[in-house]
Amino acid sequence: MQLPKLASAIRKGDRAALAKGITVAENDPSRASALMRALGPPTNSFVVGVTGPPGTGKSTLVDKLIGSYRKMGLKVGVVAVDPTSPLTGGALLGDRIRMTAHTGDRNVYIRSMASRGWTGGLSRAATDAIRLMDAAGFDIIFLETVGIGQSDIEVVGVSHAVLVVLMPGLGDDIQVSKAGLMEVGDVYVVNKSDLEGADPMVVSILSLFRGASRSPPVLKASALSGEGTEKLLGAIEAVRARFVSGEEALRLRSVRGMIVETARGAAMAKFAAVSERGADSLARRVVKGELTIEAAAAKLAP
Amino acid sequence: MQLPKLASAIRKGDRAALAKGITVAENDPSRASALMRALGPPTNSFVVGVTGPPGTGKSTLVDKLIGSYRKMGLKVGVVAVDPTSPLTGGALLGDRIRMTAHTGDRNVYIRSMASRGWTGGLSRAATDAIRLMDAAGFDIIFLETVGIGQSDIEVVGVSHAVLVVLMPGLGDDIQVSKAGLMEVGDVYVVNKSDLEGADPMVVSILSLFRGASRSPPVLKASALSGEGTEKLLGAIEAVRARFVSGEEALRLRSVRGMIVETARGAAMAKFAAVSERGADSLARRVVKGELTIEAAAAKLAP
Repeated sequence: MQLPKLASAIRKGDRAALAKGITVAENDPSRASALMRALGPPTNSFVVGVTGPPGTGKSTLVDKLIGSYRKMGLKVGVVAVDPTSPLTGGALLGDRIRMTAHTGDRNVYIRSMASRGWTGGLSRAATDAIRLMDAAGFDIIFLETVGIGQSDIEVVGVSHAVLVVLMPGLGDDIQVSKAGLMEVGDVYVVNKSDLEGADPMVVSILSLFRGASRSPPVLKASALSGEGTEKLLGAIEAVRARFVSGEEALRLRSVRGMIVETARGAAMAKFAAVSERGADSLARRVVKGELTIEAAAAKLAP
Repeated sequence: MQLPKLASAIRKGDRAALAKGITVAENDPSRASALMRALGPPTNSFVVGVTGPPGTGKSTLVDKLIGSYRKMGLKVGVVAVDPTSPLTGGALLGDRIRMTAHTGDRNVYIRSMASRGWTGGLSRAATDAIRLMDAAGFDIIFLETVGIGQSDIEVVGVSHAVLVVLMPGLGDDIQVSKAGLMEVGDVYVVNKSDLEGADPMVVSILSLFRGASRSPPVLKASALSGEGTEKLLGAIEAVRARFVSGEEALRLRSVRGMIVETARGAAMAKFAAVSERGADSLARRVVKGELTIEAAAAKLAP
């Protein structure tokens, strides 16, 4: 399908066209860029980034929130960013086993995106997917990432609100990772609140914001039992109210994130293309003593 | 201290100079680059990347391996890459609480490096730290990263051997993350082998390599009890034997990784400098409808 036609089908809410558009975003950066230009800037979707360490129940929580938004009559999209492997050939945690509660609901669209190589590329593709869902008329878009690496955290910069999902009893390594999450959250939730240690976890998160310039809400919830999820929805809705009322700072933040991710994707793609070509022969010259590592690196990224 | 003087002190094995050099690598990319040029290419250190999901006991295992290498009379360095937070102000898991068994041993040098912002920057700084330790005469250098994000995994590309540390009972999210680890390992170890599920974990890792072009060793160990760590050491030593005998492919691989990480660091630093300056005002112009996101991104990363 030609891009203007594809863009117009997406704008009419055609699911097959949306799926095709996201596949273009994943696999063909230059066509994706043309498609995005055809779509124009984001309009009405409220984007909720959801991040946190592995195993904290992010998907289950998102599933619950989808249900709440569906009851309000809103269309909900999900972009789930999965780290994957070339060896195993794609997303292990595919759309199939995620959020099965909403299969068959035409007003819910869930897409897993695989990280193939450069993080910059994934970031850009996820940003494009959000813009495609926005064009297709989704009211709420969840962007779910595993929040461990700095780059995973940066992905949520395109959101209007960021939900950080934690749980009781996270180990030492996770404590550290969690720290990287402390800047990005608008709402913090300790999920699996039925487990021992939920209250101390809340206290420890609150203590991280002591003396800080901001104090985001820190809540407890159990996605499985549903306890606390109403309150969580309320906290997200409080941010959405600001978005709906047209608060410029919120719109600027998301657009800024989209510009940065798009630019970073382009910068990384350019660098990756160069490095694939040149690195092997440069390494040989360094080992032979003909070049320093610095000179070789300068040839790779001039 | 002037850089040539610093470089020469590092080459003499002066620990204070080494510490200073690594601090330069962390905080001052352009001085670091000059220092690296003064040092020249890496010479004799065997670099072992150690990666895996959080909580698998990487540090404890490295601690054990340090002990083994010290018994062999070798000097051991460790570069531990920690994700951290500007809010909390630096590495939470600092050198102090890591591998305390070797404090006071002048032939062991352990340094934690904090991820402040761009992953590219951290990668480059870790690469520099390895080159500094190499110049200071360390025989074995462990590079420890939390292997979740793609970028964390790429960091170990500078190693001669990569050890992937897993454990029994990793959850679904971790299974996925683990997948990203399946390409990089030369040796796989299921640590905490006293826990239930160690054997099935070994079987499931082995099954991932069924039909693949390579079949790296997959071992069980318990860093705490010491069980299986001899065998693990043997598997690493098998790779080191190839390095010591001068196998060119191994040297090329590490040098190639160093060139790529150095170049990527430079590319990301350039991009970060640009994006810091321009993104806010570009976002305002996009929101006003004066620019597309694509045009704004192109201004950011031309």
